[in-house]
Amino acid sequence: MIRVVILGQGMVASHLVVGVERIKRGELQPYGIPFAKYSLPYSINDIEFVASYDVDPVKVGKTVYDVAYSLVGDTLPVPEELKKISVYEGIHLGSLKGLVDNAVGLEHRLGLKEAINRLIDQWRIIEPDVFVNIITTEPAKPFNELNKLEHAIENNSSKVSASHAYAYAAAKYAIETGKRIAFINAIPSPLANDPAIVELYNEAKSVIIGDDGATGATPLTADLLEHMAERNRFVEFIVQFNIGGNTDFLALTVPERNKMKEFTKSSIVEDILGYNAPHYIKPTGYLEPLGDKKYVAMHLEYITFNGLRDSLFISARINDSPALAGLLVDLIRISKILVDKGFRGTVYEVNAFFMKKPGPREAKSISKTLAYHRLLDLLKNIDVVKY
Amino acid sequence: MIRVVILGQGMVASHLVVGVERIKRGELQPYGIPFAKYSLPYSINDIEFVASYDVDPVKVGKTVYDVAYSLVGDTLPVPEELKKISVYEGIHLGSLKGLVDNAVGLEHRLGLKEAINRLIDQWRIIEPDVFVNIITTEPAKPFNELNKLEHAIENNSSKVSASHAYAYAAAKYAIETGKRIAFINAIPSPLANDPAIVELYNEAKSVIIGDDGATGATPLTADLLEHMAERNRFVEFIVQFNIGGNTDFLALTVPERNKMKEFTKSSIVEDILGYNAPHYIKPTGYLEPLGDKKYVAMHLEYITFNGLRDSLFISARINDSPALAGLLVDLIRISKILVDKGFRGTVYEVNAFFMKKPGPREAKSISKTLAYHRLLDLLKNIDVVKY
Amino acid sequence: MIRVVILGQGMVASHLVVGVERIKRGELQPYGIPFAKYSLPYSINDIEFVASYDVDPVKVGKTVYDVAYSLVGDTLPVPEELKKISVYEGIHLGSLKGLVDNAVGLEHRLGLKEAINRLIDQWRIIEPDVFVNIITTEPAKPFNELNKLEHAIENNSSKVSASHAYAYAAAKYAIETGKRIAFINAIPSPLANDPAIVELYNEAKSVIIGDDGATGATPLTADLLEHMAERNRFVEFIVQFNIGGNTDFLALTVPERNKMKEFTKSSIVEDILGYNAPHYIKPTGYLEPLGDKKYVAMHLEYITFNGLRDSLFISARINDSPALAGLLVDLIRISKILVDKGFRGTVYEVNAFFMKKPGPREAKSISKTLAYHRLLDLLKNIDVVKY
Amino acid sequence: MIRVVILGQGMVASHLVVGVERIKRGELQPYGIPFAKYSLPYSINDIEFVASYDVDPVKVGKTVYDVAYSLVGDTLPVPEELKKISVYEGIHLGSLKGLVDNAVGLEHRLGLKEAINRLIDQWRIIEPDVFVNIITTEPAKPFNELNKLEHAIENNSSKVSASHAYAYAAAKYAIETGKRIAFINAIPSPLANDPAIVELYNEAKSVIIGDDGATGATPLTADLLEHMAERNRFVEFIVQFNIGGNTDFLALTVPERNKMKEFTKSSIVEDILGYNAPHYIKPTGYLEPLGDKKYVAMHLEYITFNGLRDSLFISARINDSPALAGLLVDLIRISKILVDKGFRGTVYEVNAFFMKKPGPREAKSISKTLAYHRLLDLLKNIDVVKY
Repeated sequence: MIRVVILGQGMVASHLVVGVERIKRGELQPYGIPFAKYSLPYSINDIEFVASYDVDPVKVGKTVYDVAYSLVGDTLPVPEELKKISVYEGIHLGSLKGLVDNAVGLEHRLGLKEAINRLIDQWRIIEPDVFVNIITTEPAKPFNELNKLEHAIENNSSKVSASHAYAYAAAKYAIETGKRIAFINAIPSPLANDPAIVELYNEAKSVIIGDDGATGATPLTADLLEHMAERNRFVEFIVQFNIGGNTDFLALTVPERNKMKEFTKSSIVEDILGYNAPHYIKPTGYLEPLGDKKYVAMHLEYITFNGLRDSLFISARINDSPALAGLLVDLIRISKILVDKGFRGTVYEVNAFFMKKPGPREAKSISKTLAYHRLLDLLKNIDVVKY
Repeated sequence: MIRVVILGQGMVASHLVVGVERIKRGELQPYGIPFAKYSLPYSINDIEFVASYDVDPVKVGKTVYDVAYSLVGDTLPVPEELKKISVYEGIHLGSLKGLVDNAVGLEHRLGLKEAINRLIDQWRIIEPDVFVNIITTEPAKPFNELNKLEHAIENNSSKVSASHAYAYAAAKYAIETGKRIAFINAIPSPLANDPAIVELYNEAKSVIIGDDGATGATPLTADLLEHMAERNRFVEFIVQFNIGGNTDFLALTVPERNKMKEFTKSSIVEDILGYNAPHYIKPTGYLEPLGDKKYVAMHLEYITFNGLRDSLFISARINDSPALAGLLVDLIRISKILVDKGFRGTVYEVNAFFMKKPGPREAKSISKTLAYHRLLDLLKNIDVVKY
Repeated sequence: MIRVVILGQGMVASHLVVGVERIKRGELQPYGIPFAKYSLPYSINDIEFVASYDVDPVKVGKTVYDVAYSLVGDTLPVPEELKKISVYEGIHLGSLKGLVDNAVGLEHRLGLKEAINRLIDQWRIIEPDVFVNIITTEPAKPFNELNKLEHAIENNSSKVSASHAYAYAAAKYAIETGKRIAFINAIPSPLANDPAIVELYNEAKSVIIGDDGATGATPLTADLLEHMAERNRFVEFIVQFNIGGNTDFLALTVPERNKMKEFTKSSIVEDILGYNAPHYIKPTGYLEPLGDKKYVAMHLEYITFNGLRDSLFISARINDSPALAGLLVDLIRISKILVDKGFRGTVYEVNAFFMKKPGPREAKSISKTLAYHRLLDLLKNIDVVKY
Repeated sequence: MIRVVILGQGMVASHLVVGVERIKRGELQPYGIPFAKYSLPYSINDIEFVASYDVDPVKVGKTVYDVAYSLVGDTLPVPEELKKISVYEGIHLGSLKGLVDNAVGLEHRLGLKEAINRLIDQWRIIEPDVFVNIITTEPAKPFNELNKLEHAIENNSSKVSASHAYAYAAAKYAIETGKRIAFINAIPSPLANDPAIVELYNEAKSVIIGDDGATGATPLTADLLEHMAERNRFVEFIVQFNIGGNTDFLALTVPERNKMKEFTKSSIVEDILGYNAPHYIKPTGYLEPLGDKKYVAMHLEYITFNGLRDSLFISARINDSPALAGLLVDLIRISKILVDKGFRGTVYEVNAFFMKKPGPREAKSISKTLAYHRLLDLLKNIDVVKY
């Protein structure tokens, strides 16, 4: 079994727990789970959710069933098994500021240092193997040096993001208990891209995977750019618009949160093409009735042979949260396998396929197709996948 | 130098010769030529066109300059150097039936066997290294056994396609002169997919590359399907429409020519996805004012995680002939390299990237991105590309 | 009340009866019914379906409930009221040839003349006010002169289409009983465009409305062309593709049925623009999993001020049958009003908005927006709509 | 002849003067000019540009030829006749703040009141009939009462926009000379929507036309919404993105300028549908290499009959400035005709078709198709158009 703790019980987490339970029940095909067709050492049935954390007072104290029912119950059957999992109070550090009025975290009454200790105490009992960070996109910066991060935590500094605090707590839990864990960061906060965090996970003989789960239009854009590069077409410009109606899009109407996203999306252009083609790639807007199904519009022009110009237009309607939830199923399985195999720090081959801004910091984006096959090679080399 | 003979002096051939000469003159960037960024043993400057063949009486006897000027002179500067290359009478065998009224080939007055000998005699003088087959899409079937092909030629049979006749003549020229050559088949007629032809090229210690140059919407579709497969999304259906105004689209309004194309396009779905998702992938129509710039419309729906449905719509405006011409520049260079390195028969690694229906017959389609990287690996293994 | 007979119990008819009953029950908003926002002399509640006719042996003898349940029961609740309406054997005349193997019509055992009399006898009892022709698209030609039509019926000629036979029977029923009726032809068979039929309805003091209900991409194209014309933009070409998975798309894979559709769609270009811009406007293909929801792709280029070129691309996913069913609700109400007001023959103002090929034969297509406002003016002039 | 003064010598003005001169020379078809197909009392040949004003020091003191050559000379032939027209220093009032560093207007050294007098003095000599306001989108608010506007001008207030100052000057010129003039406001600044300005033009027996020329995606959206409304479809939401690379898009990256545009675009939804469907309709971004050719993406979902949902996706590539320039040709002709016929104040019928935010303030938006036909009716009623 893989014991999983969820950080942030929103739409993605709700799709994740509902989907996994439905697959366990044999009600659902494992579509949207990249490596479902290979026989990995852990099956989807081995995933067990043991606790969830949030800072929205509407959710804290409820069961995961209650929250999932309120978020996705109108379109999906919510399995009763989820009534056994509780939503505990987590760390806030302003991560919902401006979005949820009365969000409250453990650190509000305990201070940050003590809040982290409280979490570690809980985890000693729960014994998680894997942590999944899917809180709302928050402003966050790397600390670069581990002692700076520790200093900031010590001083209750507002520079510490909720993601950093959770990642720190998980690593400390690993160090203190001697258990190796994996921490998966599916949001833009720089963790696998923060040398301070990577160093910490090396110390903890644990694995940090991140940053920013590669769903939506960006992986498609990456593969399209690879398609262009492989034909030596000269991309004159690329425009990519995004609009949705879920909390994440609402969060992105706040400029400093939007910047977090723009940063992780834009790096792909130069990394894949080899030159920085002019581009406009940003989450563009929020329109509530779109709900979790976003609308993506893309336009790209390029120069082909003999100097002539071709144009490409893409429109898509994509369910936002399930796409990430599907990736998380495999991230949980693969990161646990890596821990078992003795990997530590961050693992570029995993990040390159699953993440928009693959760590470590100096790493480049590559097309997702290339990344998929390199990850497959890694899994074969460590005797995890055969074929 | 690489001495090249063109078979079929249409739009693609005109773009090819004009583009190569403009690049030699330093007037044009090598966009649309896949491997232009690598330093291959032959540069683009090493390509020399030495003769062209056609069966349209309007073209035969003219220079390549004249034909190129009439076809692309309105949009591109046509270099004077092309006045030195003549368009000779080639083999017809009905390849323009219904499209050009009074098309006439050498075999009309000489018989097929003698026509082939006439070509070989010319080539003994011209000494070509590489043949590029870009005649109009024609109905054609594989012979499977070499003696059946030889028997049909002997008997002046109408079952022999112009492509088969040209490929046969080129191989015989190689055998008789002891010179190893490469024959590139960029149209749907099965040559690299015909065991008879592959056997013949093995005998001739020469290389046959084909079939059907991978341009337009199909390579994009292949890479999109790979993108779906790598996420284990379940494709419910895929529709792909195509309309253009050049001779090739006109040819495809004739049902038996259209069938040739549908066959090479459809095989990618099952090969890449692993199941035969319902699809409608066909050249759809002809509308003269679209000219060489085709309009492609695509729609795809798939099931993602938790059983939800996503949709993708693509519209594109693509210059048809330059795309293939750009590929041919590299096909000429790479196939000559392979000949130099002692390859014979057909070479799947080249076909898989450059062709819609990669030979040999039993080969599968793979995504173009995968194929690109496998070809790059081959070129590195034989010390052609370094990095 | 308006007593309605349905001819052809397929998808459209099923949507029509289900939708109207759901609106009567107060379960459904009247979306998709153009004049629902105006208070017409007949409300939607006044529509009463009294009988349905078909020639598919699977349907004949069943209730409308049974058929509707099998066709749309997976997505819509099918009201129990529909169990009271029977599906009777109608006239075949080859209208399902090649689509349904063992289709049988009254004329097979009675001969055409006697079959028509049998229908009239039934209608004397049922007393319908309005007939709605929604059989599958069939090959059909106008008779132009009434005596030729009567002669053909007399002689059991295979030139008589099922639509002609039904329209003839309905008019004869009107003449014989002295009751004025309306016949709505929502398929491409030329009835309102056949002077023979228009003359017959004049004689019968009844109204014939047609031909070919204006749903799907064509009305949108008409309004887009009007948009271009009003800015004096020069349309260089227009392409419109259509693919679906219902019986009507299957029918259109048969070339002579497809021709019927192409004819009614293409006439709009010259009528609205004033010149025959090059166009490709055809039902393009059939792909079963698309079901009743078709995919439409459109591309249009035009010259704007200073000779520059603009491009427009449209993709749409449209439920095919409900769109027509919504129009039929108003066609039933408005045609009954016209009968009450003493109109006879055909009524261009109604046809121009609701039909793709508005009769009478010499009439032009106009944009649907213009047509809507002219029809509104007519309804105001005859005191039917106030505002 | 119609003597025209241009205010703002940017891309639109350059297209306007180049296009009109090319049409006069017989070099260009009048595409993109809505009423070119009707014979109006003034032909396009009657338009004479007599002066232009700007505040960019790079332009002031040059000829219109120089400016047009630098802006559109790469793609269009610029007629020599334009060398006779000078670009004079105009009024700035911050209209280029943040876009052009050293923009300077007459009011900088003269004060506003005196700057206006200086313009009037120039116009006494030049004798213009029509003024065309096409300066860059600027922040501006209505004054509502004429005395407030006069007071602000008297006091050199920064609340006065350049558009207000120009419109005021033109009206004063009309009053002082007794000549009736027309002022066409093609930018979002509220002039025809400012009761103060409308009152002033009534006094001046002159015509104010505005506001915000209806080009680009918004007229198309208006006609699409009308298309929906006429079928009583329930629009669930509408998204419209816009990105371009000209100065106007750059200006719209400044939030308060963007707001000006959003305001004029959004009002159409409720006006046409009758309910305020959720919408996101905004100029979205700036990407320099797109130049004057913008990319528009649109998505709309609606409920059709039986409660089912349809989707529509539109992508367009539209030359931005020529579209407005084409409208201006007719606005110049028609507004001069209205002045000749004795109209005064503002004329809704003209505004409704040609403007995004048609004045007067209390007026509603209607679909452009309806507006076109109402304007045509007006022109027929005053004996200007016959048919």
